Amino acid sequence: MRWDGEALQLLDQRLLPLEEVWVPCRTASDVAEAIRTMVVRGAPAIGVSAAFGMALAARAGADLARAADELKRSRPTAVNLAWAVDRMLAARDDLVREAERILEEDVAANRAIGRHGAALLGGSSTVLTHCNAGALATGGYGTALGVIRAAIESGKHVAVFADETRPYLQGARLTAWELQRDNIDVTLITDNMSGHFFQQGKFDAVVVGADRIAANGDTANKIGTYTVAVLAQAHGVPFYVAAPLSTIDPNCPSGAEIPIEERSAAEVVEMFGSRVAPEGINVRHPAFDVTPARLITAIITERGVLRAPYGDALRGIA
Amino acid sequence: MRWDGEALQLLDQRLLPLEEVWVPCRTASDVAEAIRTMVVRGAPAIGVSAAFGMALAARAGADLARAADELKRSRPTAVNLAWAVDRMLAARDDLVREAERILEEDVAANRAIGRHGAALLGGSSTVLTHCNAGALATGGYGTALGVIRAAIESGKHVAVFADETRPYLQGARLTAWELQRDNIDVTLITDNMSGHFFQQGKFDAVVVGADRIAANGDTANKIGTYTVAVLAQAHGVPFYVAAPLSTIDPNCPSGAEIPIEERSAAEVVEMFGSRVAPEGINVRHPAFDVTPARLITAIITERGVLRAPYGDALRGIA
Repeated sequence: MRWDGEALQLLDQRLLPLEEVWVPCRTASDVAEAIRTMVVRGAPAIGVSAAFGMALAARAGADLARAADELKRSRPTAVNLAWAVDRMLAARDDLVREAERILEEDVAANRAIGRHGAALLGGSSTVLTHCNAGALATGGYGTALGVIRAAIESGKHVAVFADETRPYLQGARLTAWELQRDNIDVTLITDNMSGHFFQQGKFDAVVVGADRIAANGDTANKIGTYTVAVLAQAHGVPFYVAAPLSTIDPNCPSGAEIPIEERSAAEVVEMFGSRVAPEGINVRHPAFDVTPARLITAIITERGVLRAPYGDALRGIA
Repeated sequence: MRWDGEALQLLDQRLLPLEEVWVPCRTASDVAEAIRTMVVRGAPAIGVSAAFGMALAARAGADLARAADELKRSRPTAVNLAWAVDRMLAARDDLVREAERILEEDVAANRAIGRHGAALLGGSSTVLTHCNAGALATGGYGTALGVIRAAIESGKHVAVFADETRPYLQGARLTAWELQRDNIDVTLITDNMSGHFFQQGKFDAVVVGADRIAANGDTANKIGTYTVAVLAQAHGVPFYVAAPLSTIDPNCPSGAEIPIEERSAAEVVEMFGSRVAPEGINVRHPAFDVTPARLITAIITERGVLRAPYGDALRGIA
């Protein structure tokens, strides 16, 4: 994403890796629509985008409370969205500068997450990741992929397996794309293959991002993350969550209180204009799931690596 | 599938549910090609198809040993293929009648599997299945889906969740299609959603088919089955394998000796002519995985329900 002085320019993540199209957002409503339709996705990235949405509303002299409401309602699960909007409401003056600060801080947080997380990986590791918690999901550098980038920058050898992450294929389309551009060794698998490679001892660690971390450490992330966490525990592989402090929701006591967005059936049964299932079929499409704290080996934040009991650790760091 | 007196007619399973196209196989090579390219798939169905391939070779006066070799090499994992070919080689005379007998016996076996398995389901159950172990995967009626059909025929209420089963989408394209045609309550999910619904207590049982069962009960089935088995155990949900005796390989001591077919990267990264990942990306594509016997609650065969220790149970029944 980039702020060009007049508009927030978003790289349309629905079209990657086939096309690189930039979508200009000139109003808060444009930003809300881009978030809702997944032009931009990834908890930190939608937080930063929403901040620029507030800045656009302020510049246009629009009703900030109304813009805040529209932006917050655009997607329900990622808490960074509400966090960024509330911070913009509290700032009030020079909102463009405040949004730029949120962007800069997010990139700096990712670099710090990367440094802390890199220390957790061995000198030669194969890491499984799910969805895209990379540069595209954040202001830049990435959370989970930031850990991998930092480990490689520190001289470690890291190979990555990327789950394709149905239905939106963020792993195939976005993680594979951005790691390939950085010349990082990446292998694409379908979501249902990870168990087989766990069984074969292929993975040394799992690193994923987060959309919301409850006060007890329960973590909402892209659908399929919970399955990976169960597999990791069954095979004795460490399971790491990498996320900035803005992802922590101290008002959510546990994962049970995190709202899980249910998206449309069409996103499951249609692929590139082709139907993949019979007409009229019932479909469920929860976009996120909750990984209980007991399955999480550590939470990597910009202020350091947290371990269980997470309630105390999260209170101590916030 | 149907034998029209001259050719084996196969419903092209690659085109379902969008198109219903029948492919005539007039030679053993036609059948081997149909198996290799997945016009027909499902362990029992490829066994029956291979039997008709041998019958076609015999009618044409072709070299039976050569036809047997070509058919056996068409896919490596399902043992029913070799079983059916060997049975045809042993039969020698009136091979068309012998192939028809294999087809009839397979349907009868599925009906018996259904009766035995139906007793394992409660009066009102939600069952998760993976891939397609239905009428399309067999001579008719199905193994895993036969259990569901028989339970419903016996007056039980069964709702089915079908994993879409990437990369070939047998769940979305085939299981959803055949259950919908039978007016059975079916809900489609992506493979990475099943963990979330296990966590929510949605499933009362898992029923899947098998491509090869080793002498110790370890079971090869469609990629992703192992992940479902790990999830089932983690949530205390019974995990049933439904398969005819022709799927058992007494010469395979354990799952470690079952050959796992690795199929092409193109099948993962291309969907309906669209690329879903960047050019040149590394891809792994194991088509099957092995579920260890310890994760299997019972194996449902046409001769009854087997429980651990499977070594003894399988020896006793074969």
